[in-house]
Amino acid sequence: MKIGMIGLGRMGASMTTRLLRGGHDCVIYDHQPEVVERLVALGATGTTSLQQMINSLERPRAIWLMVPAAAVDDLIKQLTPLLDAGDIVIDGGNSYYRDDVRRSAVLHASGIHHVDVGTSGGVAGLERGFCLMIGGADSAVKQLLPVFKTLAPGPDGAKPTPGRKQDSGSADQGWLHCGPHGAGHFVKMVHNGIEYGIMAAYAEGLNILRHANIGQQAQEIDAETTPLRDPEMYQFEMNLPEIAEVWRRGSVIGSWLLDLTATALAADPTLTGFEGRVSDSGEGRWTIQAAIDEAIPVPVLSAALYARFSSRGDADFANRVQSAMRHEFGGHIEKPAAPPEVGN
Amino acid sequence: MKIGMIGLGRMGASMTTRLLRGGHDCVIYDHQPEVVERLVALGATGTTSLQQMINSLERPRAIWLMVPAAAVDDLIKQLTPLLDAGDIVIDGGNSYYRDDVRRSAVLHASGIHHVDVGTSGGVAGLERGFCLMIGGADSAVKQLLPVFKTLAPGPDGAKPTPGRKQDSGSADQGWLHCGPHGAGHFVKMVHNGIEYGIMAAYAEGLNILRHANIGQQAQEIDAETTPLRDPEMYQFEMNLPEIAEVWRRGSVIGSWLLDLTATALAADPTLTGFEGRVSDSGEGRWTIQAAIDEAIPVPVLSAALYARFSSRGDADFANRVQSAMRHEFGGHIEKPAAPPEVGN
Amino acid sequence: MKIGMIGLGRMGASMTTRLLRGGHDCVIYDHQPEVVERLVALGATGTTSLQQMINSLERPRAIWLMVPAAAVDDLIKQLTPLLDAGDIVIDGGNSYYRDDVRRSAVLHASGIHHVDVGTSGGVAGLERGFCLMIGGADSAVKQLLPVFKTLAPGPDGAKPTPGRKQDSGSADQGWLHCGPHGAGHFVKMVHNGIEYGIMAAYAEGLNILRHANIGQQAQEIDAETTPLRDPEMYQFEMNLPEIAEVWRRGSVIGSWLLDLTATALAADPTLTGFEGRVSDSGEGRWTIQAAIDEAIPVPVLSAALYARFSSRGDADFANRVQSAMRHEFGGHIEKPAAPPEVGN
Amino acid sequence: MKIGMIGLGRMGASMTTRLLRGGHDCVIYDHQPEVVERLVALGATGTTSLQQMINSLERPRAIWLMVPAAAVDDLIKQLTPLLDAGDIVIDGGNSYYRDDVRRSAVLHASGIHHVDVGTSGGVAGLERGFCLMIGGADSAVKQLLPVFKTLAPGPDGAKPTPGRKQDSGSADQGWLHCGPHGAGHFVKMVHNGIEYGIMAAYAEGLNILRHANIGQQAQEIDAETTPLRDPEMYQFEMNLPEIAEVWRRGSVIGSWLLDLTATALAADPTLTGFEGRVSDSGEGRWTIQAAIDEAIPVPVLSAALYARFSSRGDADFANRVQSAMRHEFGGHIEKPAAPPEVGN
Repeated sequence: MKIGMIGLGRMGASMTTRLLRGGHDCVIYDHQPEVVERLVALGATGTTSLQQMINSLERPRAIWLMVPAAAVDDLIKQLTPLLDAGDIVIDGGNSYYRDDVRRSAVLHASGIHHVDVGTSGGVAGLERGFCLMIGGADSAVKQLLPVFKTLAPGPDGAKPTPGRKQDSGSADQGWLHCGPHGAGHFVKMVHNGIEYGIMAAYAEGLNILRHANIGQQAQEIDAETTPLRDPEMYQFEMNLPEIAEVWRRGSVIGSWLLDLTATALAADPTLTGFEGRVSDSGEGRWTIQAAIDEAIPVPVLSAALYARFSSRGDADFANRVQSAMRHEFGGHIEKPAAPPEVGN
Repeated sequence: MKIGMIGLGRMGASMTTRLLRGGHDCVIYDHQPEVVERLVALGATGTTSLQQMINSLERPRAIWLMVPAAAVDDLIKQLTPLLDAGDIVIDGGNSYYRDDVRRSAVLHASGIHHVDVGTSGGVAGLERGFCLMIGGADSAVKQLLPVFKTLAPGPDGAKPTPGRKQDSGSADQGWLHCGPHGAGHFVKMVHNGIEYGIMAAYAEGLNILRHANIGQQAQEIDAETTPLRDPEMYQFEMNLPEIAEVWRRGSVIGSWLLDLTATALAADPTLTGFEGRVSDSGEGRWTIQAAIDEAIPVPVLSAALYARFSSRGDADFANRVQSAMRHEFGGHIEKPAAPPEVGN
Repeated sequence: MKIGMIGLGRMGASMTTRLLRGGHDCVIYDHQPEVVERLVALGATGTTSLQQMINSLERPRAIWLMVPAAAVDDLIKQLTPLLDAGDIVIDGGNSYYRDDVRRSAVLHASGIHHVDVGTSGGVAGLERGFCLMIGGADSAVKQLLPVFKTLAPGPDGAKPTPGRKQDSGSADQGWLHCGPHGAGHFVKMVHNGIEYGIMAAYAEGLNILRHANIGQQAQEIDAETTPLRDPEMYQFEMNLPEIAEVWRRGSVIGSWLLDLTATALAADPTLTGFEGRVSDSGEGRWTIQAAIDEAIPVPVLSAALYARFSSRGDADFANRVQSAMRHEFGGHIEKPAAPPEVGN
Repeated sequence: MKIGMIGLGRMGASMTTRLLRGGHDCVIYDHQPEVVERLVALGATGTTSLQQMINSLERPRAIWLMVPAAAVDDLIKQLTPLLDAGDIVIDGGNSYYRDDVRRSAVLHASGIHHVDVGTSGGVAGLERGFCLMIGGADSAVKQLLPVFKTLAPGPDGAKPTPGRKQDSGSADQGWLHCGPHGAGHFVKMVHNGIEYGIMAAYAEGLNILRHANIGQQAQEIDAETTPLRDPEMYQFEMNLPEIAEVWRRGSVIGSWLLDLTATALAADPTLTGFEGRVSDSGEGRWTIQAAIDEAIPVPVLSAALYARFSSRGDADFANRVQSAMRHEFGGHIEKPAAPPEVGN
């Protein structure tokens, strides 16, 4: 089918490419002309303004936005006067589901449909297909089926789930209409919250393995340092790339994130190419907020989020408070930092 | 090769079956005669005493123990006088790596080798192969290679890791000699610690989704209840089996544990067949203790472990302490439990 | 000065009593006539309607609301048409600071002042004085000084802080104008978040002490139970009431909450009078949400909140998910609950 | 009574001074002659060798060790041959309770008593008295009562606990015989675990308050940054020294640690004199390990400990792992650090 794509960053460009390969007619717009050019070479129709894009589509139009969450409101504001009743705006980015609820109501007043599509898969989605979590009205979702089917991995994305009934729904195709407006991004939000937790679980475990040789290091003896009781028990030089690799095969913790970790460790066993400032883009935070509203305990998901905050220095003042307390009650002086850990 | 197998529970029986299929000659022993009988029917040599088993093996003997961690010491004590120098005892269960270090030293005094093999894969390992994390002396490990190669998934267990060099080691076969005595169980210990974290991440996320309809419930208005500010934002009836299914396909959080979760939810969408008392068998605890010895922060892995403790009622007294404090400072009376959550 | 008090629950009644003792003229209103009667006996002026209360006050009126957070909006709606420009509405309850911002703007349109006062001290505040955290415009706060000075503990509430400059402000009197609208409840919100953390810290520690005799109990030996390695190290029968008592004297962790804990344990050493369902009334949740907005890691405050959620059964489904996973990969069957812990 | 004191650091010197003021005859030894000299000026008997100290005491001797945990074993080894049956060695430092159990058994073989005394109070104990948590045999503890009574705060250390029976024990004097060998340090261990939790609770809360002005900062708009949804809700410039001060008066969270925090903030409102590397000296770690052995969930105490680890950079590699994963699946590039937070 014919579809407009706005936002051709890493994700948008991969999705457009997959759509073109699937035979769809993509009318594209982005502020970076070189990306547009590259996709035009693959068969897309390039445009240089929103108006031109709108004109190049047929009613009822379907326009997929793949832009940062912070840019969506402005873009919808520009698009609304150009659209007609019956047109569909799809937000495939990482919007907060509450914004979907709000925006869909505003667009509804103009007869325009809003569909929220939580999209997972990363840049690998071009080949693997994208996992699509969809919210919105049935009719609009139905119109977009050809697009969803092409973007999603399809039935070969994973082995069938034993015992699952054939008529359970479309999830085994890699896309799912999760519910009304916001449901798609709600599910994607929680998906990312889980993702943070899983990533942190691997990261913590690998950190333990990396320091399993701590018994070989000289121990300082002073009142500010806990002595290591059994240095002979921490004499292991662990080969992290090989451990990540072996876990990929037959173990209980095999996963796509582990596959990626093995790839990264194979290329750089000490990961010295990274400083360890871990960004977060909102979904992990919103997941915690939803959990708190629902009174659901989420200690793992929270811990993962907070570790990211701390990695960026945001515990700094809290740490100073504690050093100050220790100084007050015990006269403790802060120990200077050890020389920075070298990557070996 | 010829190998003795002691302990034919779920794991031991699956491993023996896989070894038999791989052409190995398995001499087996278990206190449950019916299990022995079943494996004898598949080609194993059954024995009815440790002595008989020892006699049925050729020197240097290889004897694989697949018994609960708490039973290993006693078993090794019985075996030691029956064994000869050069024989190999393999502990494939979930022993604490510190016990490996101790036991290997004791056995070494009699010239007997000890090899620790952390084994992951669960009952599915029969078909998928088992992930093997191995600790011990080179020579003993080398003698056991035929067994490791049969038990492990082999190169087809997962797609090759991009960029991994061919000569990196054996991990891409699904088995890895991780280091000296204890290294295998150390890696397996951390593996299980990670497993706890990943399981909890999914569980917390699914719990949020399950209660995404909380806005439909009547809210109590009293000083002991936090009002839900935006009930209209929690009106989603999420289809958990389908959500787990769609995440299996193309998403960032695809994993074997998710596959299993989808299977469980397909069979019982509300999981009312379970009470939610989550056991732990030690590795998660030892992982935290290792992390603390190394001064490695492991908030995610700890939170996952504590959630298991709490699921079994172990926070009970701490909760009563807090209710008592609230009563003291504010005269707060505990609210009675809501009617038990029904599984719908 | 003359002041209206609406809401005479535990806190409101204590505050009114303290104001009456301080010579203030309190015009009171509550839907429970017996409470009104009791305070009238102490010198308050009872009223039976909001209108009557308003009539009994002189302009500019000051009306202190001490009602559940969920009841404030409705009450302000009823009050607004009865009030005149220049009147002051004080919200001394546990409102969310964002509601203060909103309400103060609405009232401002009618020329009515809004002052938010986070009030801490519990029922003991009658004798100890109440800690007052105040937000609002300078002029309104200034008018209320006589009331704040009476309610607050005054300079004898605690020993002077060494090194604090005399002209630092009013905090050493037990009240503080924290900033504009909402600042008072923001500080109170964080205060309660900290309170949750401190309470949980004591509760966790006491729980460890209570189970320091675990080595005396018979250990089950099965694959679902972690063996206790050193039972001889857990043979202590700790006297919790005496331990709480001794910590009150000279230790680093002395506090008012510890005083209360000692009181509760002195009366009921096993706290069997409580079931352990710990309520939360909102501030702990809002604290986490503020922290997340600010990207501040708050693992301790979150853990304390989640323990309350779990104490009420809200981890239930997540636990079932994990038991289901364990059943899938290892065939693990849930262990039945041990007989309920008896309080001895 | 006559008592030997070994180890005259901050704690040991304060305790000796308090004992001297209480009329005790202190025979002292330390490797720093200037400290010895200072205490001799206050009335202590200085010695220059362990042998001389032993000779200066009368049988049965009582010798109080106040040295780092890592130095105790060596010191006891030197002392043992110099002592006689019936002598008492008191370990008043922060030893692990398991070491008490071991050492007491070794000393017992020579007829020497071991008493473990967890000592809390910090340098302020000189004036406030020290909180003493005692383990050991009744007879030895009884002999030391005069010393305990002088060191402890006595009955005026805190107001009486309402409802506590007069004959409950000695805790209201500030010292408690908690049980057999190790019980004193076990209770002190948990005390410190709680201390970590309380400190972190305050620190996290103050960190939230410090950043309550985050809405005034310009927000970056990119895919790596979560937009702040309500900047107008984070416009507060909080006066932390005054907030800590006001909480000391009448609030639920008043405590000695808060008193110290107020002191530190009064002197340095931004605590720029500290870098935020928070040491830990073992008890917090041992507390977690005991909790895990007992299967007691301690999320708050753990989170506090891990925050200290992270403050010293120990999450570094785990963070790099997560950045590496994000790079693999999304092509995310780490954002450079913002300019270091300035202390204002």
